[in-house]
Amino acid sequence: MDKPRRPRAETPKGFRDYFGTEVTDRKRMLDQIAEVYHRYGFDPLETSAVETVEALGKFLPDVDRPNEGVFAWQDEDADWLALRYDLTAPLARVAAQYRNDLPTPYRRYAMGPVWRNEKPGPGRFRQFYQCDADTVGSASVAADAEICAMLADALETVGIPRGDYVVKVNNRKVLNGVMEVAGLSGDDKEAERGIVLRAIDKIDRLGPEGVRALLGAGRKDESGDFTKGAGLNDDQAAVVMGFSSAKRDTGAATVARLRELVGTSEVGTEGVAELEQIASLLAAQGYGPDRIVIDPGVVRGLGYYTGPVYEAELTFEILDEKGRKRQFGSVAGGGRYDGLVKRFTGQDVPATGVSIGVDRLLAALRAKGRVGGASEGPVVVTVMDRDRMADYMAMVGELRAAGIRAEVYLGNPKNFGNQLKYADKRQSPIAIIQGGNEAEKGVVILKDLILGAKIAESATLEEWKDRSAQVEVPRADLVAAVERMLGQ
Amino acid sequence: MDKPRRPRAETPKGFRDYFGTEVTDRKRMLDQIAEVYHRYGFDPLETSAVETVEALGKFLPDVDRPNEGVFAWQDEDADWLALRYDLTAPLARVAAQYRNDLPTPYRRYAMGPVWRNEKPGPGRFRQFYQCDADTVGSASVAADAEICAMLADALETVGIPRGDYVVKVNNRKVLNGVMEVAGLSGDDKEAERGIVLRAIDKIDRLGPEGVRALLGAGRKDESGDFTKGAGLNDDQAAVVMGFSSAKRDTGAATVARLRELVGTSEVGTEGVAELEQIASLLAAQGYGPDRIVIDPGVVRGLGYYTGPVYEAELTFEILDEKGRKRQFGSVAGGGRYDGLVKRFTGQDVPATGVSIGVDRLLAALRAKGRVGGASEGPVVVTVMDRDRMADYMAMVGELRAAGIRAEVYLGNPKNFGNQLKYADKRQSPIAIIQGGNEAEKGVVILKDLILGAKIAESATLEEWKDRSAQVEVPRADLVAAVERMLGQ
Repeated sequence: MDKPRRPRAETPKGFRDYFGTEVTDRKRMLDQIAEVYHRYGFDPLETSAVETVEALGKFLPDVDRPNEGVFAWQDEDADWLALRYDLTAPLARVAAQYRNDLPTPYRRYAMGPVWRNEKPGPGRFRQFYQCDADTVGSASVAADAEICAMLADALETVGIPRGDYVVKVNNRKVLNGVMEVAGLSGDDKEAERGIVLRAIDKIDRLGPEGVRALLGAGRKDESGDFTKGAGLNDDQAAVVMGFSSAKRDTGAATVARLRELVGTSEVGTEGVAELEQIASLLAAQGYGPDRIVIDPGVVRGLGYYTGPVYEAELTFEILDEKGRKRQFGSVAGGGRYDGLVKRFTGQDVPATGVSIGVDRLLAALRAKGRVGGASEGPVVVTVMDRDRMADYMAMVGELRAAGIRAEVYLGNPKNFGNQLKYADKRQSPIAIIQGGNEAEKGVVILKDLILGAKIAESATLEEWKDRSAQVEVPRADLVAAVERMLGQ
Repeated sequence: MDKPRRPRAETPKGFRDYFGTEVTDRKRMLDQIAEVYHRYGFDPLETSAVETVEALGKFLPDVDRPNEGVFAWQDEDADWLALRYDLTAPLARVAAQYRNDLPTPYRRYAMGPVWRNEKPGPGRFRQFYQCDADTVGSASVAADAEICAMLADALETVGIPRGDYVVKVNNRKVLNGVMEVAGLSGDDKEAERGIVLRAIDKIDRLGPEGVRALLGAGRKDESGDFTKGAGLNDDQAAVVMGFSSAKRDTGAATVARLRELVGTSEVGTEGVAELEQIASLLAAQGYGPDRIVIDPGVVRGLGYYTGPVYEAELTFEILDEKGRKRQFGSVAGGGRYDGLVKRFTGQDVPATGVSIGVDRLLAALRAKGRVGGASEGPVVVTVMDRDRMADYMAMVGELRAAGIRAEVYLGNPKNFGNQLKYADKRQSPIAIIQGGNEAEKGVVILKDLILGAKIAESATLEEWKDRSAQVEVPRADLVAAVERMLGQ
């Protein structure tokens, strides 16, 4: 007979818990972004975490990775259910399901966790937040332009100053035009096009040589692993490489260069015209190239994009894990996807939208010192005499009623040092002390813990009470004295 | 060869989507509650939605129901994972996992969805929000008293006025004492005690006769279904019934009556003393029986409670689905559970906490007209001339920069009536119109849609422009004129 073993107290592998300011910093950032989305006319949508597998479909990014996937299980009716892996697939389902009730176009934003059944790694979790805004039902590139402007506004609102970010815009149609010119447009060339797309997407990481290798025979990385290439000949590869390096100093010059590259390709010409339109719509609103630029280097890995694609990059430098300087990089991206709703209805429903990488943006704000200031610890009312708990509760009640964050110590009050250690751990600004003597005199002692934090670690009660960072005030003045000490 | 059928665009059975103000009303309420929890010194904790099945354990309420359960699946390592069914089980796991790092006591709050793999029904969903606050590591009834006070504050803060709610407090130890007196204290009587517990919990619904029947042989309900009773004899049942009707006009009288009922039972006497202490701690903070009362009718169905239990009831009447008046009833409940962390560590860790039923409280606020005011629709800039989209984008940009929620119409602009219908659907307060004539004159037309909503339904452009609820202003005055019309 085995003794039943105790359950392990462990977060499941690849998941994590968020404590205190980790929760509130993210919440504050999301609230600020929601305010911008709201001002742009976007309405919130919250779908359930669970979807049917058939509604989700298979649109996961990173088709390179082997163990991509979702968390799925079978219902009592043998239907397969799964946790959503992004916020776009549920939107496509909603747009189809409620198509007769929703306004057209439908601007919506969504914020919440998504789940990926992937191999976890450092900084890569199986549950993470996304924050999306999409416009469903508008074929106009004005919808794409609007989302680029909104993305710039959102970044500035959360604390990324102008000049520290850039929103890069490109168009898949231009890339398709280039593919046409390079002789890669047939249905039988889909695999090659996929390799080309992902190769260009990696130019920041691999450099032009790495991309060139992937366009040709293939590339061996530092570890010796070989990735098969698209097998283009030199002429074909030159056209594609020309595209990825087509960025010029001004938007007009970039557009002119792209027009050369797409030649007579109809789809390519259309794509270039759309980019021009987006640039002019943004200029009319005052969004110049200091905020939003045309950049052919942006292609976005996802297969389902059909038109404009965009990406927000942070341009300031941080130190990577090896202490080397590097640009912070991408924190948001998106584009136009006209096929997702059609899966359900059979009808074309144009759509475009952006997803902000919540954790990366929060990390950027932390790196810039824009979040994670002093956490606001509570005033701690200590318990000198456990029989007078009602008195201490009355004190804490008065403080709370005045809007001051406050606690009475609820652990075992026998060891006063433990109470001070507790206050320290709570980052408490002030401890309130009232022993029998003070009660008789009708006073309380306020200890300024911000000054006294270091000392508190080893203090005995008597040392503690002798420090100058403490004041004795009449009991009736408790709230006013605390407010003074907090600098309110 | 079957043609692949299209996926169904359906929310999975028992799940739902939340749109617009459904999302923001709940968010506002949760933000208000979080502010109260914060003021009381509680820190946020956000655990992942996924837990190991072994960490979750089996503590679901409603053991009566057959298809209770969780959504679970097997990991690639053959570990069973599941969606959390409440916020207490993850807290117990966290308290055990981080026991050396967390402050003791640890006050934490958590808000978020939980999932139940149960038969869905009207108003019963498989994903819903909970909003919890718990203190882990304090054996003091001051911790229970604090949570009752905080619950009262939270209800008033979200908009339930004093007098419209009451927090009822009881103590499982008193009930255990009563069981002892009734001869139901042995290990072999656990099933009977369970039946008694659930019977008392249903007194509001079944009345004293129904409860009495369940204490005896059993009860047949209206549909003819028979529920087996606890099999108590008349003397035993009289003791239990005496407990459930022990409430008197004052807390002191109720306590006196309970003291009689528990007789010489040690645990019962201890329970009565704890209730007295809670009442005196609350009185010291000014929480009198107009807000928090001792009520032996509250037992809470969950098996894991070990001491004080509490419940918030809304006392105003609403009409039920059959048009009959009834009290709104319970919106929050909780109590002391000293065994949940011990499952992991083997050590006693006292804990107490409350869970607010988010959807029920929100429904109560709706019933009282406290949420769901006018949703703030955007100003809609219409598109009279699609070649001048840049001009319309500039208008909307100016409005947004001034903090005004605004949109440009992004659908097909050909049919102007559709644009007005869209503005109507968006509950837009103002439509902005600028055709070629207006552009030449350097003016824009502002249409007050709140006045003109009815007319808009069938208006042609010419009718529309002749209405008096519209003004023509210089283009340069656009923002100021909109602000005036919005009453800002």
